Amino acid sequence: MKKQEDADMSGSRRIRTDLALETTERFAEENTEIRGVEVHEEYDEEKDVRTTVVKIVTENGAKSMGRPQGTYITIEAPELSTPDEDYHREISEEISTHLRKLIDLEKEKSVLVIGLGNAAITADALGPQVVDNLLMTRHIIKEYGLRGIKHKKMHRISGIAPGVMAQTGMETAEIVQGIVSETKPDVVVAIDALAARSVRRLSRTIQITDTGIHPGSGVGNHRNGLTEENLQVKVIGIGVPTVVDAATIVHDSMAHLLDTLEETEQKEFLDEMITPNLYSMFVTPKDVDETIKYLSFTISEGLNIAFSQV
Amino acid sequence: MKKQEDADMSGSRRIRTDLALETTERFAEENTEIRGVEVHEEYDEEKDVRTTVVKIVTENGAKSMGRPQGTYITIEAPELSTPDEDYHREISEEISTHLRKLIDLEKEKSVLVIGLGNAAITADALGPQVVDNLLMTRHIIKEYGLRGIKHKKMHRISGIAPGVMAQTGMETAEIVQGIVSETKPDVVVAIDALAARSVRRLSRTIQITDTGIHPGSGVGNHRNGLTEENLQVKVIGIGVPTVVDAATIVHDSMAHLLDTLEETEQKEFLDEMITPNLYSMFVTPKDVDETIKYLSFTISEGLNIAFSQV
Amino acid sequence: MKKQEDADMSGSRRIRTDLALETTERFAEENTEIRGVEVHEEYDEEKDVRTTVVKIVTENGAKSMGRPQGTYITIEAPELSTPDEDYHREISEEISTHLRKLIDLEKEKSVLVIGLGNAAITADALGPQVVDNLLMTRHIIKEYGLRGIKHKKMHRISGIAPGVMAQTGMETAEIVQGIVSETKPDVVVAIDALAARSVRRLSRTIQITDTGIHPGSGVGNHRNGLTEENLQVKVIGIGVPTVVDAATIVHDSMAHLLDTLEETEQKEFLDEMITPNLYSMFVTPKDVDETIKYLSFTISEGLNIAFSQV
Amino acid sequence: MKKQEDADMSGSRRIRTDLALETTERFAEENTEIRGVEVHEEYDEEKDVRTTVVKIVTENGAKSMGRPQGTYITIEAPELSTPDEDYHREISEEISTHLRKLIDLEKEKSVLVIGLGNAAITADALGPQVVDNLLMTRHIIKEYGLRGIKHKKMHRISGIAPGVMAQTGMETAEIVQGIVSETKPDVVVAIDALAARSVRRLSRTIQITDTGIHPGSGVGNHRNGLTEENLQVKVIGIGVPTVVDAATIVHDSMAHLLDTLEETEQKEFLDEMITPNLYSMFVTPKDVDETIKYLSFTISEGLNIAFSQV
Repeated sequence: MKKQEDADMSGSRRIRTDLALETTERFAEENTEIRGVEVHEEYDEEKDVRTTVVKIVTENGAKSMGRPQGTYITIEAPELSTPDEDYHREISEEISTHLRKLIDLEKEKSVLVIGLGNAAITADALGPQVVDNLLMTRHIIKEYGLRGIKHKKMHRISGIAPGVMAQTGMETAEIVQGIVSETKPDVVVAIDALAARSVRRLSRTIQITDTGIHPGSGVGNHRNGLTEENLQVKVIGIGVPTVVDAATIVHDSMAHLLDTLEETEQKEFLDEMITPNLYSMFVTPKDVDETIKYLSFTISEGLNIAFSQV
Repeated sequence: MKKQEDADMSGSRRIRTDLALETTERFAEENTEIRGVEVHEEYDEEKDVRTTVVKIVTENGAKSMGRPQGTYITIEAPELSTPDEDYHREISEEISTHLRKLIDLEKEKSVLVIGLGNAAITADALGPQVVDNLLMTRHIIKEYGLRGIKHKKMHRISGIAPGVMAQTGMETAEIVQGIVSETKPDVVVAIDALAARSVRRLSRTIQITDTGIHPGSGVGNHRNGLTEENLQVKVIGIGVPTVVDAATIVHDSMAHLLDTLEETEQKEFLDEMITPNLYSMFVTPKDVDETIKYLSFTISEGLNIAFSQV
Repeated sequence: MKKQEDADMSGSRRIRTDLALETTERFAEENTEIRGVEVHEEYDEEKDVRTTVVKIVTENGAKSMGRPQGTYITIEAPELSTPDEDYHREISEEISTHLRKLIDLEKEKSVLVIGLGNAAITADALGPQVVDNLLMTRHIIKEYGLRGIKHKKMHRISGIAPGVMAQTGMETAEIVQGIVSETKPDVVVAIDALAARSVRRLSRTIQITDTGIHPGSGVGNHRNGLTEENLQVKVIGIGVPTVVDAATIVHDSMAHLLDTLEETEQKEFLDEMITPNLYSMFVTPKDVDETIKYLSFTISEGLNIAFSQV
Repeated sequence: MKKQEDADMSGSRRIRTDLALETTERFAEENTEIRGVEVHEEYDEEKDVRTTVVKIVTENGAKSMGRPQGTYITIEAPELSTPDEDYHREISEEISTHLRKLIDLEKEKSVLVIGLGNAAITADALGPQVVDNLLMTRHIIKEYGLRGIKHKKMHRISGIAPGVMAQTGMETAEIVQGIVSETKPDVVVAIDALAARSVRRLSRTIQITDTGIHPGSGVGNHRNGLTEENLQVKVIGIGVPTVVDAATIVHDSMAHLLDTLEETEQKEFLDEMITPNLYSMFVTPKDVDETIKYLSFTISEGLNIAFSQV
């Protein structure tokens, strides 16, 4: 999260969001259609779950969106951070369904799950907690064989929470690259706590994408992304916004004021308003402990369901 | 942290701070002297440690400051959240010295230390982590007697991290009241993570007061304070600001703008700017895990030093 | 776990067990019937769950069994430490059913759940982890009233993990006594990790009793029990054996040899065999982390189910 | 810890120890001198610290000892698990001195520290906790350069706690191999909780060796060792015995009895005595939480001191 702001094609400075959906919304607000980007939305009224699939299909679309070509599925479920077990089960099924569309799980696969983030900071502990709840099978198959455990087919699941750079002295991407080279999975699934633009989105949105994890995401500072380009295997990214940059909060609160200013004035105004300290701060809900507990459980169940059948 | 705003004597709405020092600073900005309040400041240039003692000595002073009569010691040490062991040792000695002024440790005392806050939220885990590092002696003296452990005199130290209301279903004050009634300590020392007004203050300021802990402090929601009035024993409060209310950040960024508005306009403006969600959010540094680790160690060492001699 | 051995009625020294069932089994081995003790056993073949209800109904029975009059329900379920969710759900229902027999939950009750043990030692963390997963309601009802949360009737649930004496400097019984005096629950439910006699029993047995928790149980050292006599409210104890005393292991391995010796020779032999160090050691399974995780989840679900309806 | 017993040169079955020192002691008991093995012992009476250096210098010595050629330094310090900070500082210095003999730290080195073991099982959490307290520098040098942080020379320290196979589905050796290939350290330092033969040794002995970590060590099950042969870089192993195999306890208690039996009788006797369950159990002290906390602090300080100077 080094660079708080992105230059997009329009040249104006925008504060970062990790959610593709938030970018399409901005275009929608401006009544702009984006070429090369397909948006499909479904709403389940009964469950109050909205699923939006954003497909970036051309290079131009990628440029407009400021993110790579690929599929971005967003599940919005307001009750995600409440302790209703049946509701969470349904979201787990939903996650499982989408995963099965992005990964061909009809054939036996070797899957490496990476729980990104810092387990010692509650808001950043989503990834590590998901890996903690995951059923690993790779070592059992390796030791006893499928016959030994009376299965005909089975996915080989492995996983690790590699920690963050301040804890390890290593880029997360270096660690993952090393493990991928050594254990040769067919696909990597990386789980991460994301930064949203809006507090409204926190703890109630799950983004699943086949484009991996990109730099500048989340609470921590992953300089190198986890992508198919880097790792030479398919990378699925699953993210939940759990924080908003502190600077974003101030920025957004003053959006209306900013609109009345010229671009150069905007920059001056912001530089004055937002103290440098703010860029090393994040905003998170006061019940973040409960929230992360429920969310990590729901996602790990989603993975467990998806991986339990061949 | 239910009520985000306080009415002070001037009638204007002010966002809450747990630090007496921040209140005196506001008055200083306005060039107002406060009757019934004595402020004494010392600065150790070599160590870059500033110690301010605020004494509220009259009922009027208490009213002006919006907090009870008593002594508020603030230690400001910019390097508090860095891993320099020798520096931390000096701050621990400083804490110990002030504690010995507030508690008469010349005579044997029975001290109950309360680690307030939610151990599962990093920014709120200061209190529980301090208790974790504390040397307890009460049970040993009770079991073997002083002679059994070859001491002539010794303070009887006990401690607990009672958790927060969402975890226990009980007011923290109820739990502490019960334990105080049963174990009858001479003095209670309560450690808490506080809310500051300014991000500049975070993780570098320690407040020690003989007025206990008051409602509306910190990350959590302690409705009933821990005070001598409630518990019938002296209560020392030790607090470190680790969070700022999200709403405060926005409010403060717009302070200059607000100054140009009438009071009623100010309110309208703020209501529009600050979305209700923001009131359930807090702002905290991205390295809060390291920060809390060092701070809790420094404070627990301060207590251990103070309590090790009679 | 101060005293490792108990004198039972026969005068011979026996190494301690926290399970009533293990005591009845010893009598059964010796083909002795115990007056004043009723044993009723049920076995569900399909689920492979055995439930034994031991009722100690006379003072003589209590003397023979070395434990107070009351009901001791033991659920033996070999699959308890495996990750089969449906199986655990059934055991949770079973726990709930027995709780409803021991506590009259037809009427609204105020229940205080105590998670005994040391959260920092995996084998002793059962109690704290159960409390962690419990739905607390007392504070919500207190704040909003039943009407506020749209319920007609509801149990008021509160809970705490008080830590162990080495952590707090206080007897657990002192802390609980204080909280009981202050919050006045109708019933206390105390969860504890127990010491079994046999490794065969570990992590697959749940004991529920209306006689509370007695000294000398578990990994830690609770000198004063949690009983109706002490606390002046009904106390339900729920325990799972997670450790065996290290000395017991040696003792039992040599049981046949011991049988060939005279009583005084037995003592000498044991004193020589069992080094004093062994008495400060415990034996626990290598997968104790997974085991405690599943068990605490199953028990907390059992409590949540029992308390969810009036 | 799959195989509990080892065949040594004499053909008799011996229960496993991870400590070279315990093997030399057995020979000493039998008054046997071991060719190809040099033993040098020093005792600091004032500090009550005994340091033994065992050097296995020939292939024959390696065969006799049942472990590879190399240097095994054992520091025995009875007060290691007590909270005396000055004492721990001295042991940290001692560790640092020995490390500097085994690694040439006169030249800048890139060091990867591996914290082996399961952080969720207290007795096995030594390695992860050491890594937790370590000062990482590699990422800072990589980002800012030495000039950027105003140093002329500096070791590049990185580290990770890779978890155990049951948590990751991967061999620890696979993970470490991958990270070594990717980050190319000059030397690997692996910290592990070991299994001792005798409870007397627990938590008071530190073994440092330049032969790495070998299969069958500790609480967990590392099938493939971490050795120079596997990883193609020098591997220093630092281990502290924190557990004893449960079967060992029984075995050793009966040592005198066993001596009276023929070899085949011994085997029969043991098979009868030691129930198979015991092989999946370990023995550990009741204060293992405090013990691991102090030990991990002492070792991480030892590493920090050793690595702080070039």
